[in-house]
Amino acid sequence: MTMEQTKYDIYAINLLGDEEQRIRIERLKKLMKTAGIRHALVRDNADIYYLTGRVFRGFVYIDVEIDYPRYFVRQPNHLVGKPGTVCNIRKPEQIPVLLADEGIDVGGALALELSATSYRDVQRLVAAFGLSEVQDLSPVMRAARAVKTAGEQEKLRLSGVRQSLVYSRIPHLYREGMTDIELQVEIERASRLEGCLGQFRVAGDDMELFMGNVLTGENADAPSPYDFAMGGRGLDPSLPVGADGTVIRPGMPVMVDVNGNYTGYMTDMTRMYIAGEIPDIVIRANRLSIDICNALAAMMQPGTQASQLYEKALAMATEAGMAEYFMGHRSHAGFVGHGVGIEVNEAPVLAPRSRDILEAGNVIAVEPKFVIPGHGAIGIENTYIVKDSAPAECITNASTDITLLD
Amino acid sequence: MTMEQTKYDIYAINLLGDEEQRIRIERLKKLMKTAGIRHALVRDNADIYYLTGRVFRGFVYIDVEIDYPRYFVRQPNHLVGKPGTVCNIRKPEQIPVLLADEGIDVGGALALELSATSYRDVQRLVAAFGLSEVQDLSPVMRAARAVKTAGEQEKLRLSGVRQSLVYSRIPHLYREGMTDIELQVEIERASRLEGCLGQFRVAGDDMELFMGNVLTGENADAPSPYDFAMGGRGLDPSLPVGADGTVIRPGMPVMVDVNGNYTGYMTDMTRMYIAGEIPDIVIRANRLSIDICNALAAMMQPGTQASQLYEKALAMATEAGMAEYFMGHRSHAGFVGHGVGIEVNEAPVLAPRSRDILEAGNVIAVEPKFVIPGHGAIGIENTYIVKDSAPAECITNASTDITLLD
Repeated sequence: MTMEQTKYDIYAINLLGDEEQRIRIERLKKLMKTAGIRHALVRDNADIYYLTGRVFRGFVYIDVEIDYPRYFVRQPNHLVGKPGTVCNIRKPEQIPVLLADEGIDVGGALALELSATSYRDVQRLVAAFGLSEVQDLSPVMRAARAVKTAGEQEKLRLSGVRQSLVYSRIPHLYREGMTDIELQVEIERASRLEGCLGQFRVAGDDMELFMGNVLTGENADAPSPYDFAMGGRGLDPSLPVGADGTVIRPGMPVMVDVNGNYTGYMTDMTRMYIAGEIPDIVIRANRLSIDICNALAAMMQPGTQASQLYEKALAMATEAGMAEYFMGHRSHAGFVGHGVGIEVNEAPVLAPRSRDILEAGNVIAVEPKFVIPGHGAIGIENTYIVKDSAPAECITNASTDITLLD
Repeated sequence: MTMEQTKYDIYAINLLGDEEQRIRIERLKKLMKTAGIRHALVRDNADIYYLTGRVFRGFVYIDVEIDYPRYFVRQPNHLVGKPGTVCNIRKPEQIPVLLADEGIDVGGALALELSATSYRDVQRLVAAFGLSEVQDLSPVMRAARAVKTAGEQEKLRLSGVRQSLVYSRIPHLYREGMTDIELQVEIERASRLEGCLGQFRVAGDDMELFMGNVLTGENADAPSPYDFAMGGRGLDPSLPVGADGTVIRPGMPVMVDVNGNYTGYMTDMTRMYIAGEIPDIVIRANRLSIDICNALAAMMQPGTQASQLYEKALAMATEAGMAEYFMGHRSHAGFVGHGVGIEVNEAPVLAPRSRDILEAGNVIAVEPKFVIPGHGAIGIENTYIVKDSAPAECITNASTDITLLD
């Protein structure tokens, strides 16, 4: 067991380094210009982490005409950056005053993360700046973050290696008579000891999950309120998703989809486990899931339409006579894959009506899964980096076979 | 180790029972009337859980003149309730149409959770309803939830019992040479096996924490961006709070403040642990923290001002010559306690400028803590239920002594 994190610099506001930060901000500025945005104020933790490599409470101000961002920091108040760029504030009302002091025009239009900021907080900023128009930075940030830099890809690869190592230990964590949640707790512990940060970041506030999803038996068919690929009853109606205390029985497939956040960037990987004999249909469904992943990886390159990938997956499920079980049985998820990075639900989305078109640097989790009554949830999930040409690079490389628990 | 959860009814939209739900909704309606609100649409998961005892994706509609709530459910689509109250929808635009079909006036003013809903989502509802005014339900919901019903208090007591049981096992989880995070992982495992749901609900999107905070040594003095009582560097700048991999050394106090969500309702408890000799100042600081908790519990009754409780705590710290270390050293938290329940940052807030006045049924975590350079974080935290008269009832009853690790 290793705890490899080196202690990071608690003082530097930019932990990315100048060059990495420049690449990200140039990309963001280009997208801002295309969207007709002159300047923006970023406050969402995930977006601040993207722009600085750390989380702080406050705001990053980006003006397409100004070289370096300005940082308005509420907490902690000891951060340092380039001269004149870091300002400790007590309240957001100080920001327009400080910008005006620099000669920056603060009236008119300003872009804010309208999907990630409460109505109340937006109102407050509108009043503080005296804005005549508020523009939406959320789709712009989403587009910026959808293409991962080389530095981000490295963090994702590292998460994939660690997550795969943990998954390889799962057979040793199983004991006969265990419940799904008991197995999940041991996987959580192994993950945390390997350096998993635990935190499961999701955009929007409708989706919640603790540290992952272990599903076995009929629980796989219990619909949940959340927009994940799979459901599950969960232990309590305050968090109705995932393991529900079902005893893992021989011949019953166990689907493991547990948190891959080892670096601030998450990989998403699902694998199948089973004790005793493997029913034929379970082998077939897992094989089909692997085949779909491979077929999609072979199509994933710049210019591919995200909707085509969904259609291909559905067509393969249909051809195999498994359409009825594809992405659920009693209730069906409307996608077969999604972008992943700082958050688990990034762009592009592999869904029938998605307008996303793949670009090099997209990182996409592909999860063709089946829920078969009398058996449970079956299928794998891999995370891929889209390269300049197909196939995409798989960064979650644990064995895709159904692993025996014993 | 027990997994006592009984499997809940996945079909019923109201898991509270009629009487418990009626009590909560009557309280909410009364507060709505006082605030001049005729009707409201609730969508935040924590608030939906409060009103129904479960989480679903959708909306609860409350009209002060209508007996039962209407439920507009996006996901899952199999929930059932009283005839005519549950409606499955695909999109929020259907809601005003369905309400109008019932003869309900949907124009004019409507209250939404403006602090818990994104600007984008509020805009969409404003357009769908053709609203001329949007009122803020957030402070009303906050006030409603601040006074816990007898049923909620029972859930909190149960969380307190389970959390105390887990804390009593901590000495057995310690091994010489462990790091803070390694000890935390073992506490997390023990908590999860005892039935801890893990999910740490916080109002607002600025605060993040995985499953709790174990602090030892100088890490206690590393300021964090989050508005918690204590900080810590954390393992990674994407989540800069808590344990940072410091080896637990003899004579160095270890503060444990780990997730108490066993029932959908969280208790909040902190206790101190140490290996080897206990320095005198550590004993004194822990004793002072206990004394402050007891003094505040003796003052906590209906009518007590929350600010008075803060002043009392600060006065006791000052009298003991510990003001410099009170609620932090390099950076100081601005409160000594907070309401707790479904979320960890509920009303009332025990802070200098708080206008909250205690009511019977408030559930308050009191956490007078000290950060002493060269030693670390020291102090306890208890959760109390405010009764009709003082003292408040402590529901986190693990021993308050500094426990020896060996």
